[in-house]
Amino acid sequence: MHDLIKKLRESNGSKIVLLVADGLGGLPIEPGGKTELETAKTPNLDRLATEGTVGLSTPVAPGITPGSGPGHLGLFGYDPVVHDIGRGVLEALGVGVEVGPRDIAIRGNFCTIDADGRVTDRRAGRIPTETCERLVAKLRAHVKIEGVETLIEPVREYRLVVRFRGDGLGEDVCDTDPLQTGLATIAPTAGSPGSEKTARVAEEFLKQAQAILHDEQPANYLMMRGFAAFPKIETMAEVYGLRAVAVAVYPMYRGLARLVGMTVAEPGKTIADQIDVVKSLWDQYDFFFIHYKYTDSTGEDGDFARKVGVIEALDVEIPKLVALRPDVFIVTGDHSTPSRMKSHSFHPVPTLLWAPATSRPDLATTFGERACLNGGLGQFLAKHLMPIALAHAGRLQKFGA
Amino acid sequence: MHDLIKKLRESNGSKIVLLVADGLGGLPIEPGGKTELETAKTPNLDRLATEGTVGLSTPVAPGITPGSGPGHLGLFGYDPVVHDIGRGVLEALGVGVEVGPRDIAIRGNFCTIDADGRVTDRRAGRIPTETCERLVAKLRAHVKIEGVETLIEPVREYRLVVRFRGDGLGEDVCDTDPLQTGLATIAPTAGSPGSEKTARVAEEFLKQAQAILHDEQPANYLMMRGFAAFPKIETMAEVYGLRAVAVAVYPMYRGLARLVGMTVAEPGKTIADQIDVVKSLWDQYDFFFIHYKYTDSTGEDGDFARKVGVIEALDVEIPKLVALRPDVFIVTGDHSTPSRMKSHSFHPVPTLLWAPATSRPDLATTFGERACLNGGLGQFLAKHLMPIALAHAGRLQKFGA
Repeated sequence: MHDLIKKLRESNGSKIVLLVADGLGGLPIEPGGKTELETAKTPNLDRLATEGTVGLSTPVAPGITPGSGPGHLGLFGYDPVVHDIGRGVLEALGVGVEVGPRDIAIRGNFCTIDADGRVTDRRAGRIPTETCERLVAKLRAHVKIEGVETLIEPVREYRLVVRFRGDGLGEDVCDTDPLQTGLATIAPTAGSPGSEKTARVAEEFLKQAQAILHDEQPANYLMMRGFAAFPKIETMAEVYGLRAVAVAVYPMYRGLARLVGMTVAEPGKTIADQIDVVKSLWDQYDFFFIHYKYTDSTGEDGDFARKVGVIEALDVEIPKLVALRPDVFIVTGDHSTPSRMKSHSFHPVPTLLWAPATSRPDLATTFGERACLNGGLGQFLAKHLMPIALAHAGRLQKFGA
Repeated sequence: MHDLIKKLRESNGSKIVLLVADGLGGLPIEPGGKTELETAKTPNLDRLATEGTVGLSTPVAPGITPGSGPGHLGLFGYDPVVHDIGRGVLEALGVGVEVGPRDIAIRGNFCTIDADGRVTDRRAGRIPTETCERLVAKLRAHVKIEGVETLIEPVREYRLVVRFRGDGLGEDVCDTDPLQTGLATIAPTAGSPGSEKTARVAEEFLKQAQAILHDEQPANYLMMRGFAAFPKIETMAEVYGLRAVAVAVYPMYRGLARLVGMTVAEPGKTIADQIDVVKSLWDQYDFFFIHYKYTDSTGEDGDFARKVGVIEALDVEIPKLVALRPDVFIVTGDHSTPSRMKSHSFHPVPTLLWAPATSRPDLATTFGERACLNGGLGQFLAKHLMPIALAHAGRLQKFGA
């Protein structure tokens, strides 16, 4: 599909806005009740739904609940099953660690070993985050490996991220976690010749870490897993010919945008700030990815009423984006996060596409899960949304004569 | 999919009619208004929509605007991305030049070169079509190449079609257009050994053309591009076991039908004539492709009212086809041509399938874009329509036990 797009694409100065309300889709609490989005008063989104075209997006495949990585890759037009991003890279992006083509990112976790080197607690008693931060600082102060640059970043409790930067680093190295207590950790071993340097570097890192941590309790060692290189993925400029910018507050989404080659702007703190940033960059880019976190976090908290509230707060901001006169304005989510489930879910995601010049109106007059059932976009795979957006923006030539 | 169909298909004497109203889908002119098809009074199509099953067809892929070639291949059940028909072949079909397995079809255009052979006008001042016809006649009278049969046909203004017929002709020859003025034309060069004869023939053709045209102004030379062989494509008889006949007035559609092995009937001039032809051939074929051009041409003209008119004129003829008692009767388009856009578009195409013995009725009681949103066919890829039609006609056995 990307090959076809590359052949057909053309530039015409049009502007596309992709507003991702993370975890937008929901469920009713009561049988027969309304979802969060259906409950929220959203006059501005309803107007766009009436004038535009709506539908339901399946992020990865029917029945698949996506994490943030696959969810966003789909919306950016990449098949999330084909473009599997390594766990180490996702963990790094999540804490704001940049990952580039010379890097290997690794998930680490502090653990407890006994005098014989056997693991007695794989999570080091779930040490508090402050301890994690102190131990990471200690590692930073003392670890020194020739030939690579090492970056260490705390995540939460017993979890950390390690990034090696250097030449000739492959990602094909086994996890060192034995997955049960009573066993020694596994030596990091390369699965293919191109990763031997990484394995040697990791071995040296673990040796130094053991020495540095040996008088700590309970976190007197660490394990590494999910060795991952920067994924080979074509940029949005290469595939779509778009100058794309991300205006996202949280590190994970900035990182995901960077993976597909977007410029990452300083977003400010609130959605109002983000929209101001979009406004200030309007002439410099063709494609604007705006990420709104709170529909997901309130869903994860199981707080139906607060999820309704943050949807309403988002709706209030919509006219500012419409006032910029985008050629295509999309509002969707990377997945559903029903507050009833307190987690990401597999349910299709309400999606609205408003394109004043090219939208074919459908039967929807509000923006919500049930209204989207009658939508002109039908039920579609998220990876098809970008070609549909480009088409509505007049950026795809006719295929064949 | 074709392999599966070939295993499951069986003949049962049933009849399938595929009526393609070219560019059928549309858009409202006014926000909230009706499309052309929704505006048209179509009591006969509405009756079929009520009794049958409707849906929205995506010709190639979401967001892709198809030309007539890919649009029709999809409806005939061939993946238009896999079966990419070369530009030269499509141009030839469009002016009624037959293309067969021993042929290479090439798009030509007259141009102006200076005394040093540099292109000064790539379109020869857009000479009128009459001049094009005179120059083509002059070329026909004098070009003579050993070992191949040459056919030259005017298209419009500076454009013409050249067809070489002979043995051992490959299509892998570069365009001779340098794409900018001030440069010499490029010699036709084979990209692989199987196309060397074509390159030599083209070189000789261009040499002779230059001598024949040298005292013309401004069209004193020509360039060639889009070298294309007859596509290797299984016929509808081979895939579906159908005796298929095309009743189409315009050359392009007759040619496309011939590509997939249909017999091409003499259609008369009007849709009423075409239906008479179908009636006269009813016992000799299983599958009838009827092409109606005017829904597209009025859309291309941007004439909403006339597009409504030609839809109503088509509706009047529908009972005659129903009276033939087809087992499956499909009305669809190869793409949308909204008069608001004056061009083909990417919007899904209203589709109706009426099969008295097997249709499962849905919620639609009229035939139109919005009504099709609730249709039993859902939103589907055009290439899936043929298996659905065969199934409704009882021509596919059970798969597996």
